[in-house]
Amino acid sequence: MKVALFGAGRIGTVHAASIRLDPRCELVAVTDVVAEAAEALAAQHAIAVKNPEEILGDRSIDAILIASSTNTHADLIEKGVAAGKAVFCEKPIDLDLARARTVQAIAAKADKPIMLGFNRRFDPNFSALKAAFSGGEIGKGEMLAVTSYDPGPPPVSYIKVSGGLFRDMMIHDFDICAWLFGMPKFVTASASCLVDPEIGEAGDVDTAVVTLDYADGRIATIRNSRRAIYGYDQRIELLGSDGMIEARNVLENTVAKSTAAGTVSAKPVLFFLERYMRAYAIEWSAFVDAVLDGKPVPASVADGVNALALAEAANISLKEGRRIEITADMTGR
Amino acid sequence: MKVALFGAGRIGTVHAASIRLDPRCELVAVTDVVAEAAEALAAQHAIAVKNPEEILGDRSIDAILIASSTNTHADLIEKGVAAGKAVFCEKPIDLDLARARTVQAIAAKADKPIMLGFNRRFDPNFSALKAAFSGGEIGKGEMLAVTSYDPGPPPVSYIKVSGGLFRDMMIHDFDICAWLFGMPKFVTASASCLVDPEIGEAGDVDTAVVTLDYADGRIATIRNSRRAIYGYDQRIELLGSDGMIEARNVLENTVAKSTAAGTVSAKPVLFFLERYMRAYAIEWSAFVDAVLDGKPVPASVADGVNALALAEAANISLKEGRRIEITADMTGR
Amino acid sequence: MKVALFGAGRIGTVHAASIRLDPRCELVAVTDVVAEAAEALAAQHAIAVKNPEEILGDRSIDAILIASSTNTHADLIEKGVAAGKAVFCEKPIDLDLARARTVQAIAAKADKPIMLGFNRRFDPNFSALKAAFSGGEIGKGEMLAVTSYDPGPPPVSYIKVSGGLFRDMMIHDFDICAWLFGMPKFVTASASCLVDPEIGEAGDVDTAVVTLDYADGRIATIRNSRRAIYGYDQRIELLGSDGMIEARNVLENTVAKSTAAGTVSAKPVLFFLERYMRAYAIEWSAFVDAVLDGKPVPASVADGVNALALAEAANISLKEGRRIEITADMTGR
Amino acid sequence: MKVALFGAGRIGTVHAASIRLDPRCELVAVTDVVAEAAEALAAQHAIAVKNPEEILGDRSIDAILIASSTNTHADLIEKGVAAGKAVFCEKPIDLDLARARTVQAIAAKADKPIMLGFNRRFDPNFSALKAAFSGGEIGKGEMLAVTSYDPGPPPVSYIKVSGGLFRDMMIHDFDICAWLFGMPKFVTASASCLVDPEIGEAGDVDTAVVTLDYADGRIATIRNSRRAIYGYDQRIELLGSDGMIEARNVLENTVAKSTAAGTVSAKPVLFFLERYMRAYAIEWSAFVDAVLDGKPVPASVADGVNALALAEAANISLKEGRRIEITADMTGR
Repeated sequence: MKVALFGAGRIGTVHAASIRLDPRCELVAVTDVVAEAAEALAAQHAIAVKNPEEILGDRSIDAILIASSTNTHADLIEKGVAAGKAVFCEKPIDLDLARARTVQAIAAKADKPIMLGFNRRFDPNFSALKAAFSGGEIGKGEMLAVTSYDPGPPPVSYIKVSGGLFRDMMIHDFDICAWLFGMPKFVTASASCLVDPEIGEAGDVDTAVVTLDYADGRIATIRNSRRAIYGYDQRIELLGSDGMIEARNVLENTVAKSTAAGTVSAKPVLFFLERYMRAYAIEWSAFVDAVLDGKPVPASVADGVNALALAEAANISLKEGRRIEITADMTGR
Repeated sequence: MKVALFGAGRIGTVHAASIRLDPRCELVAVTDVVAEAAEALAAQHAIAVKNPEEILGDRSIDAILIASSTNTHADLIEKGVAAGKAVFCEKPIDLDLARARTVQAIAAKADKPIMLGFNRRFDPNFSALKAAFSGGEIGKGEMLAVTSYDPGPPPVSYIKVSGGLFRDMMIHDFDICAWLFGMPKFVTASASCLVDPEIGEAGDVDTAVVTLDYADGRIATIRNSRRAIYGYDQRIELLGSDGMIEARNVLENTVAKSTAAGTVSAKPVLFFLERYMRAYAIEWSAFVDAVLDGKPVPASVADGVNALALAEAANISLKEGRRIEITADMTGR
Repeated sequence: MKVALFGAGRIGTVHAASIRLDPRCELVAVTDVVAEAAEALAAQHAIAVKNPEEILGDRSIDAILIASSTNTHADLIEKGVAAGKAVFCEKPIDLDLARARTVQAIAAKADKPIMLGFNRRFDPNFSALKAAFSGGEIGKGEMLAVTSYDPGPPPVSYIKVSGGLFRDMMIHDFDICAWLFGMPKFVTASASCLVDPEIGEAGDVDTAVVTLDYADGRIATIRNSRRAIYGYDQRIELLGSDGMIEARNVLENTVAKSTAAGTVSAKPVLFFLERYMRAYAIEWSAFVDAVLDGKPVPASVADGVNALALAEAANISLKEGRRIEITADMTGR
Repeated sequence: MKVALFGAGRIGTVHAASIRLDPRCELVAVTDVVAEAAEALAAQHAIAVKNPEEILGDRSIDAILIASSTNTHADLIEKGVAAGKAVFCEKPIDLDLARARTVQAIAAKADKPIMLGFNRRFDPNFSALKAAFSGGEIGKGEMLAVTSYDPGPPPVSYIKVSGGLFRDMMIHDFDICAWLFGMPKFVTASASCLVDPEIGEAGDVDTAVVTLDYADGRIATIRNSRRAIYGYDQRIELLGSDGMIEARNVLENTVAKSTAAGTVSAKPVLFFLERYMRAYAIEWSAFVDAVLDGKPVPASVADGVNALALAEAANISLKEGRRIEITADMTGR
């Protein structure tokens, strides 16, 4: 399966390695608006730099991987579908929910798999949690709590184009809740700017709690902070009628030192590349399974629209100081 | 210091033991509407059964400990104050916020200490957490999360007179939030009946999440369930600008067994008497310090009014589906 | 059951509290060569100070608890037996194995229970481990490892009369091995003085490893140090054919703090009084069960002789640099 | 740097992947006595199958990696040195100590790096432990305990050619002790056959404890079992004058499930390929650093001789039931 890569930045580089590790794939081309980035990645993998049109027009290329900037995602998915390619696209589809729904309509008619990069679904810890839950090991789900803190805030220049915390950061956690519990009935958001005043000046928040109320009484809470000085804090906790299941943090190492000051163990691994390194490889493998073996796509465009709908509701909730009902027309299904 | 006990039930029995353990105290009398209960406790400790009037009229008695049913608390505090006694009263002051405020007004004029039984403030784990936080070890507080699950629901007969989950169960967690973060600006509640349908038929909930928004942007969340099949789950987690501090569960023992099924460690200790056994003794000792040494009362009537105001706000929030503002006139200060 | 106490020092004080807590017992008298100590303890519990002869001659006294210095144990056990008392004696019986065997011969003919204070057998963690092991939860036992480090060395004056590390400190661990695995075939000791040179000058060691080889191939190891700067380290680990079971340390609290330096959790509780506080109460209760209800004594004089035989063998092994065979005539059974 | 691989079995395959991952290396040839194995590996990496003579005679090849059977190691190291190659060889050098010493003498005169595959030195957990210890974080070392259990015994056919538990399995742990504490003065072994009677019939043991006594009083203990039903148990614990440092197990995932049966967390990862996956890559990288940058070899032939000397001493100790002194002429330095 021949693959071309759109975007040679940090996440594109990670995906290139995943493609190379999968013996069923051949990485054949890369494109990037920053020519130097494309050339460096091409040199590293001994592949060609091409422009987007060349890639889309090359009938020997089976799949494209979109890891370019967010504002290009929707267009590239549509062009990839039109060119008959299988498409893997980083989240989000678009910052605009209406635009994402247009993509969804087009995706619905595509005959090749389209998958979104919700990498956390493929983390071995989170998928072990889901397997135990789905297998009934803790009975019926009741309360879900997702903790997701970044080690430190990104530059304000990034914040300004990010779409805001709910669409940029909590989007992953909305997806985790939808993955485990489905779509809620109400979204209620609390948020503030406690970490970096410049983030507030840019109109965004850096600290947030969102509560999701489900029609059947289940409740999910998500906590986000742009700064946890001890590392990348990524946990899930799920209370059910027959028990509780947690996915705890992945630590840098297993060393513990005991002195008069207590016992010190290691911090969580620093950031998403370390934490989700294995998840990225498993995610790509699942996409190849979908393309080559016809397996269902484990993270669809509809899932992307759902997560975006929750982010939009959270933004409205925060602005208006009230809970927002999720109606059928807002979701991706 | 001579002490008389009102209430010879489960919690009265615990307090009797605490009084006996403190060498500065002498337990001299007990009273209970159930004569057999009073007599059994009196026999165990070789003390007299008296009626309330005898106790209040006995000038040799320095302090009374009120562990009788909730609907007697307010009256007994007032009578104790009028009789010139130091008063220790189990939470809550009353199920009615207005009535609690009347008590507070009277308490404000009392010249002997009046203390409320917010036992969790005296748990060595929680107080170690507070000491570290107050000592600046994790910087400025940002997000607080209190998890508090009972091992199983009480009988519905109890639920019916309990005042509801927010006033009966979450009252402790409201106090913990106020103890660590002060009084919030907004209260938003989500809740449902997932554990026992009879609780719902009795008009109460058994599963709840409450979010407290503070004027300066801090956020606290409380999660309650009437059932955690693995035991009494009592945790606090506090994110600050310089780190995170947690108080984890107290387990039955330190044994871990590793087999082909994984490593099994013990459950949390079963319920509040086991979990807070040490806290009850420390709490009583703090009251005696206040009476004998003039130290400040570490859990005041105002604290009780505050917790009750948050519970009342949560009830309104749940009923009306909106967040409730905590105004100055609602609080105990 | 009326009880008199020999020894009003640190451990006698602990036992006095255990006696007082058991509603089946009445503490009636105390004796100590240090008059002030006896009087202080007597005043605290409102009991009489008597001399040993008065206690032994008082037919209303059912049991004696021997917590006086080691060199008085053997005599007092014999006198207690002769006076028809039930006897509880702190370990060890005597520093001299031959003398201990004489006591054993006399004890064998006593018609009242005689019990030794091997407190660790009553630690809830260790007894949960033993229950799981005896219940077959990890199959057949194969390797046992006991870790036992004191927080810091005692004064050299104590070392000089202690009988040496094997008889004073490791005696407990020998008993734990015998309790879990029975008596071994060979004892091999390694030891040195690494903590305090004065201990070496006094002819003792402060760091030791002993290996016990069993006739059927099982192996136990004991590690002792007079100093673990992080606290009182008391662990057991047992590998079996179907799994492994551990009793981990008891920590000061459950608080964990995460910062840029990692996650710090609490140290083990400081020393034996804190660590084995509950064990002392359970131990006493087991003695009362033996006296009043005829239950078997859970730590017998024979157990004491066995532990002492292993200590003696370790001393010889260390001196001669070879493994020592435990023959039938060396043991307490 | 062009590399040729001797041995296309399980460990050869792992090393081939490490070579491929290092951008400084090119894997150019493979050889194996099993032609099919060589061809499969060659096909996977698009390289040539050659015979040993071709590889040794090819002056464009800079380094050889010896992952063939143990009985070929010594000869191949010598031939590699003679051919002017840098040599990386899996442990052990040889099952015979005298033969290993001959190799050492030849290695001493080689002008290219020769490195032994003591993979555990490169485990990130163990190297973090060593860094903390070397950095003085726990003061002066006093007691070291290495626990190393395989998940299950190998086939008896393997046992018969393995050289026995001490040379085949505990060799790693001897090296860890020498790496952390240096060479001891005495070796004392206890061992038995508890796991599989066929291992005993083949003249080997499957359960063993070895104590290493150091001239300055430090003591190390190693525990080995061929079977830990819960997984691959690989731990180090080191007590020092200022604290204790442990490297705990690496678990399959971070999921914990709490039910009425307690809290279950995951087992250790299954076996050495999973546990030491990262170590193998880091190890290879260290060899390339030595070859290309002249850095010191972090695991030398002398280290291999030392570990073998300890294994030989353990065998004698077990046979003769006494401790064995390690004299200067027995070691690799």
